[in-house]
Amino acid sequence: MEEKLLDLKTRLAEVADLQQAAAVLIWDQETYMPPGGAEARAMQMGTLSGLAHQKATDDAVGALLDDLSAALNGTDADSDEGALVRVTQREYQKLARTPRELVVELAQTLPLSMEAWKKARETDDFATFLPYLEKVIELREWQIEVLGPAESGDPYDVLLDDYEPGLTTATIDSVYDALHGPLVELVEGISAHQDRVDRSVLLGDFSEEKQMAFSREVAEALGYDFSRGRIDVSAHPFTINFGRDDVRITTRFDAADPISAIMSTIHEAGHAIYEQNIAASLSRTGLDSGAGMATHESQSRFYENVLGRSRAFWDV
Amino acid sequence: MEEKLLDLKTRLAEVADLQQAAAVLIWDQETYMPPGGAEARAMQMGTLSGLAHQKATDDAVGALLDDLSAALNGTDADSDEGALVRVTQREYQKLARTPRELVVELAQTLPLSMEAWKKARETDDFATFLPYLEKVIELREWQIEVLGPAESGDPYDVLLDDYEPGLTTATIDSVYDALHGPLVELVEGISAHQDRVDRSVLLGDFSEEKQMAFSREVAEALGYDFSRGRIDVSAHPFTINFGRDDVRITTRFDAADPISAIMSTIHEAGHAIYEQNIAASLSRTGLDSGAGMATHESQSRFYENVLGRSRAFWDV
Repeated sequence: MEEKLLDLKTRLAEVADLQQAAAVLIWDQETYMPPGGAEARAMQMGTLSGLAHQKATDDAVGALLDDLSAALNGTDADSDEGALVRVTQREYQKLARTPRELVVELAQTLPLSMEAWKKARETDDFATFLPYLEKVIELREWQIEVLGPAESGDPYDVLLDDYEPGLTTATIDSVYDALHGPLVELVEGISAHQDRVDRSVLLGDFSEEKQMAFSREVAEALGYDFSRGRIDVSAHPFTINFGRDDVRITTRFDAADPISAIMSTIHEAGHAIYEQNIAASLSRTGLDSGAGMATHESQSRFYENVLGRSRAFWDV
Repeated sequence: MEEKLLDLKTRLAEVADLQQAAAVLIWDQETYMPPGGAEARAMQMGTLSGLAHQKATDDAVGALLDDLSAALNGTDADSDEGALVRVTQREYQKLARTPRELVVELAQTLPLSMEAWKKARETDDFATFLPYLEKVIELREWQIEVLGPAESGDPYDVLLDDYEPGLTTATIDSVYDALHGPLVELVEGISAHQDRVDRSVLLGDFSEEKQMAFSREVAEALGYDFSRGRIDVSAHPFTINFGRDDVRITTRFDAADPISAIMSTIHEAGHAIYEQNIAASLSRTGLDSGAGMATHESQSRFYENVLGRSRAFWDV
């Protein structure tokens, strides 16, 4: 079994390298790539994603997973090895049902779509983005067709599974339904007393350089390790990792309202600190970027709202 | 033949995508990557280079090249198709003789070596760089062993062929030997009259921001297209392309002597303008980054020395 586990890990490491390389290309596109680079970038993304799919769905991987799964037979389900086999098998079954063409087309379309969105956002011109959005929706419908139907019958649950395995739209709705009434009441209550809030001290004209310096200071104070990460500017803030020792965040600046960038930085730092603290032993296995979006978002929201909006944090 | 040519081009496009993705990773490492990222980056580079080698040396590529070469039979040697088959076959024969392990080890070692060099350069500590240099030399000796011996008998000519196909150390020596006497005389003549040169106006304390703004202005004036490129800072200036529509340059600043950055920017802009003007029809073929280092360097030196050091250029 040891030998088969090593074989599986070697294959997964190659897939992880391809996915991390693709992630570097995404990071570059959203931060520094000149507009001219979009076409070639789409081709590069298609090739990397197609190869990652090919390697991940190799018959040998399927056979190794079957053998290892049988050998483990449900024991050690929570050990690193048990989790690796279980999570990889779930992922393998989805990937094996996904045509390579769909993977490549999605990988090529998303960067071009992102570029069109950036331009449309700048010029407030939805019409130029619409054809890209339609193409993405078409590809997602194809994905739902090959992976679905979901147990629940809700088409979106097929896609939701990529973000939070096992979660359904119905469960999310029940959570939001219960929150809706009290939240509306809370917001209305606060809104009614806005005259008692004076945030003028937070507004003004703050240079991007000074906001960036302060963002760095705040992220560092929270525990974000800049020797294994960096912060840049993008149209929409995000966190991305190329392994646990290179987890990057982005932010964006509003000269008139610096709180926007600060809160966004704290939020992304929350995501990034979670990833920087993943066990090194999970590197290049595919288990090294968090269990799902719910836990991930709980970390970012905890940093943003529980820490970042507390009086104690700002009293330092 | 048309069908075989299309098959070959499709395969070469995949190799080009992998090589361009690897180039993005190199650019990122030399400009923005945090130090923690070096280990994972080496693994990513190894995987991308190994796959590119696998795709480029596929038996089917060899067979296609043989068939196309026979069909062309020396006609149209200078057409795009003729050049594609000729250059790809030359490259194929070298790659096919190079073990995958050597390709992967080189791809993994060079980024780690670069990282060690950057640190050693900062602290002026050659000893920490030495083991990396030794490893690189060991790998290059392996490369010479599998690709050599060169017709000339000079081991370095095996490596030189990667930079300028067909050129030999003996030819370079004969050029330099002829230049040596007159150049020494020229430099001595200039040095003897240094008191007649007053460059104090060029020295001072110039901020990085202002030097960058001026570097951009100069590059743009020379014809470098920023919508298909960008300029950043790195320890050693270089030009790199991920396709003709994303050709990036780097520079470095010396606060006391801004001429250093300006000349370096002009030099790299020369390289980049050459690549930005390569025919779009050659994209993703492997023919789209210049014929060899000699022509490439002639472009950068022409911009740097003939244009950049002319009175007319600075009189504008």
